[in-house]
Order: sequence, then structure tokens, then C-alpha cells
Amino acid sequence: MKRSLSQAVLLALALTLTAASASAQTAAPAKPRGMQDILDASRPADWRALDPNNTLYLELERGRVVIELAPQFAPAHVANIRALASNGYWNGLSINRSQDNYVVQWGDANAEDASKRKPFGAGFKPKLPAEVSRKSAGLSMTVLPDPDGWAPQAGFAAGFPAARDSATGSSWLAHCYGTVGAGRDMAIDSSNGAELYVVIGQSPRHLDLNITTVGRVVKGMELLSSLPRGTGALGFYETAAERAPIKAIRLAAKVPKAERSDLEVLRTDTPLFAELVESRRNRQDDFYKRPAGYINICNVPLPVRDRAAKKK
Amino acid sequence: MKRSLSQAVLLALALTLTAASASAQTAAPAKPRGMQDILDASRPADWRALDPNNTLYLELERGRVVIELAPQFAPAHVANIRALASNGYWNGLSINRSQDNYVVQWGDANAEDASKRKPFGAGFKPKLPAEVSRKSAGLSMTVLPDPDGWAPQAGFAAGFPAARDSATGSSWLAHCYGTVGAGRDMAIDSSNGAELYVVIGQSPRHLDLNITTVGRVVKGMELLSSLPRGTGALGFYETAAERAPIKAIRLAAKVPKAERSDLEVLRTDTPLFAELVESRRNRQDDFYKRPAGYINICNVPLPVRDRAAKKK
Repeated sequence: MKRSLSQAVLLALALTLTAASASAQTAAPAKPRGMQDILDASRPADWRALDPNNTLYLELERGRVVIELAPQFAPAHVANIRALASNGYWNGLSINRSQDNYVVQWGDANAEDASKRKPFGAGFKPKLPAEVSRKSAGLSMTVLPDPDGWAPQAGFAAGFPAARDSATGSSWLAHCYGTVGAGRDMAIDSSNGAELYVVIGQSPRHLDLNITTVGRVVKGMELLSSLPRGTGALGFYETAAERAPIKAIRLAAKVPKAERSDLEVLRTDTPLFAELVESRRNRQDDFYKRPAGYINICNVPLPVRDRAAKKK
Repeated sequence: MKRSLSQAVLLALALTLTAASASAQTAAPAKPRGMQDILDASRPADWRALDPNNTLYLELERGRVVIELAPQFAPAHVANIRALASNGYWNGLSINRSQDNYVVQWGDANAEDASKRKPFGAGFKPKLPAEVSRKSAGLSMTVLPDPDGWAPQAGFAAGFPAARDSATGSSWLAHCYGTVGAGRDMAIDSSNGAELYVVIGQSPRHLDLNITTVGRVVKGMELLSSLPRGTGALGFYETAAERAPIKAIRLAAKVPKAERSDLEVLRTDTPLFAELVESRRNRQDDFYKRPAGYINICNVPLPVRDRAAKKK
């Protein structure tokens, strides 16, 4: 909402200068740091590298989308997804649906036609249990103090936006912007990981506990969110020509190291992350006149950085 | 997330048949209606026509975006916007910013250059009061029972998602997907309506009470949300060629009737709307296994229909 970029840059400079002069005056009360200052002050231990065994590269004509899988939440689905990627199952298939303010979805456009559909290949289990939630026991969660409407508690677990209910003893991945889920039919245990969707709009948290969620896009969301919307019902593309071709979906561990995206994600279980959340809950930069005093898990940024770029 | 469209259609048919047979058995408990059934049962009084004096057409190469202005909340800004539209101010200007999961923004790319910027024309006031909120007195609001985190109360006023605070006696438009706001500089009263943004991502409610909001996109969101993201800071396009040209922005009242979009929007102050909200708070169709028991104002659909299409 800044009126111009040049002013934003000037402001950033002004804030840096202000911070510098404030730190020189020991008597001045410290102004809370903004997100960029917090990230600039982070140490290596505040970050975690993506595990290549839990990282998926979705290669589109327009670039690479990087997905972090969540075996902590959906181990059976993630095992199937690894098998499908290993088998090259999605290579040559397409994104078949883009519904505004909701989801994009990919898979086999001929999935319903037994004579045309692509075989899943080795190591794929056609029947999986629903994994819409898991036991909270054994899962560490950074719970936000902010009330969450959709769940008794919400926060971050294993780096993912998540929620939990002490009454049921269960935890689950929350449907936020960028969350990846497994498409299914009517039966809750009818997903198998071959058809995946990504949230591209206002967090559809009503899907929580109704569909198995398998991970989160950590980089390249803009390649999915800016796809033309489908004009058919539910945002399905009406013609094959409209579908976005998938060049390949590969597990990072199976990709030569030189071709990998060397990404680090900010940890969500550190004092630095707590400071970052507070910096977004109550914005302190000069643009904001009224701190919100509240934040929703789906509004918390989860910073990613490229280690390769850092080394250059 | 349906696995296929054909199954969705079959399901819709099955639900219709079930509803028909249920109504034939007087003893059977009525199953709550889903959104489409509710809309199908609506009467003319459940809808309101858009007021041409409060309706803006943003004409892009890819089609028309229809915006409903909110003079109930930002009368001075709306007056300026009407003047600018009347003067053809935006015609030939461009969308200059598309930041993923945040906003698109348009206006004069040369606004900061006094020698190049476009004159605003007659009837435009360069200096406006901030209109980030208004007095609650005189404004009817349909308040949702669901807690809202960002505000003491939230619901719908004049058909817009809105919030209010009895402690301050003020109400304001909420930043949801599709909300239109007035870009500003650092000072809260530095917006003038010439630069406008639209939310294209997770509701940035922290902007509430910080920026003047002027309306809402009621049709054509997909034309904005699917624009390529800008690669510059804050999602600004880095070159003029990337900007999306604006053919025209016109007030509907100034457009010949034959060229107008003849739209009706569902009223938000009716029993039918309350039923619709409940149908989304607790989904009853067979796809959902666990009703959420909660809804956020930014997740409530605000249906729009084309009267011209209905007559055909």
C-alpha cells in the first residue's frame, strides 16, 4: 500500500538510521525490531535446511515450485507421493484446476477413465488411511496465544501452521495459503496422494480435519497463484489446452545436487521466531498507526532463504 | 477438492433427489439446505441491485472488474473516485503492482514525478481526511456470533464485510479478499483515492483502521488475482512493459445502460443470508465429515448474479 517504491526504500533507510542512532543512546528505550531487522539478526541456528527426502520440486514451464512434505502428519500419503515422484508419475500430466480464492489442483486429467489413466507404478499403495490428523503426543507445537476460532489451539509444528485439540488429543496441519492437500472423493479415506491441491486464497480452514494435508509450498507460490482461473465448475479448465503442463515432479533427494534449490526455512520454535510473530502482531514501523494486537497463524510469514544466493 | 467434476455433478443431482424425496415424507427431519439450494429458494427481496452511482467498472484487456464503492464508510474518498472516473483519470494508466498473497495496485506510475504525472482534473480534492473508520451510529450491522480475533465484533454492513468496536463507537470495512483500499504515504490522511489496491491473498486485517477502505470487488476478481506477480520490491513491476494497461475506469452511472453489468448482490441483512452463513459454518453436504462450527467474515461468500443472464 506504499504509494511508491522509492518512498518505501527511503523509509527502510530512515528506519535503519533510526535504529542505529537509538542503539547509540543507551538511555533511549529500545524500539521493537521489525521483521527485516529480526531476520538480519538471526543466527544459523534459527534456520533449518529443507530435508531433500521431504522436499518436492514441481517443475512448470514458468519455473520451480518447492514443496515441503509433512511426514509427521501424513506418513502414508508422503510415502505414496515419494513413490509417485520416483516413478515419474506426474511428469507430462498437468494442473487441471484453478479456482479463484480457493485452490489449484493437479493430477491425471484422465483419472476417471480406466482405459486412459496413467499407471501409478511401483511402491504405490492404492488404498491409504485418512490422515486428516495425528496424535498430539510426540509432536512439539509452538502455540500462539491468539485465539483461533477454528480450533482450540493453533500455532506451528515442525515448521508448519497447525492446530490441535486437547479434548481429542489430536493435531493437524491448518489450511493456510500454500498448504498442500490430497484430493479425495466422498469417502474421507479415498485420497491416495496422486491428486494434490494447493490453497491460493483465503484460508479454507473448514477443510481442516476433512481432508489429508501433506505439506506446504515454501517457494514459487506465485507460479501457481497467478495461473489463469478455470472457467468450468469448481475452476476446472474446460479444455486440455488450458491446463498447465507439469514438466516433472521430483523428490529433491533424487535430483543431482547441482540442480537442487538450496533452501533454508526459519525455525518456528525459537525466541527469534516468537519475536518475529510479535513484530507482525503489533507492527511498529511508521506506516502503521494502530497495532492490531492479534495475529492469525495463516498471516504469519514463514521466511525462506536461498543458501546458494547467500554464498555468492 | 472433488476428485472429478462428473462426480460433483452426480452428487448435486443425488442431493436434489434426496431433498425431493425428503420433502415428500412429512415425518423425516429436514436436512439443512446447502448454499445452492438456499440461493435457488431466494426471493427477489433477498437481492439488491448495485447502485450505478456506487459502481465502478475497471476495464482491462482481459475483461471487466466490477467494484462496489462504499460511500457509507469513505464518502470523501468515494467522491474523489467518482471525480477521477468522470475525468477519465485512470484511462491509459496501469496496474503497477502485484504482490503475491497480498495486493494488486493501480494508479499513475509517474505519480512521484511532478513533471510527468497525470493531472487529476476537475472536482478532485487533493487533501482528504483519513476515513479508516466511521461512527457506528446510523449503520446497521449483521453481527456474526463467531469470535473475530481482529475486532470485538464482525459481520456485514451495507453488504460489506465489516467490524466494529463498541468501546470506540466506530465501524470499519474489513480487509478481506477483494476489499478495495486507497494507497497512501506515511501519514494516515495522505490517501486521495487516485491509487487503489485490491486484496488478492489471505485477509490482511492488520491493515484495518490503518488505511482507508473504499469498497469491494463484486465481479472479476480472477482478472486481478491471476496477474503475473511483480518481481520488484513489494511486488511492483520492474518495467513498464510488465504493467497491465487500464483501458478505462468508469462509474456505471456514466456508462450507457446497454453496456452496464446488470448485477444483483445478495443482501446480508435477511434470514436467508443468515441461513447461508450457517450452511457455510457447518457444511452438511456429504463431502464434509466434520462441520467446522465456526466461520470468519472473510470466508463468507457474497453471491452475485447477473440479471441480464437470468432473463435470457
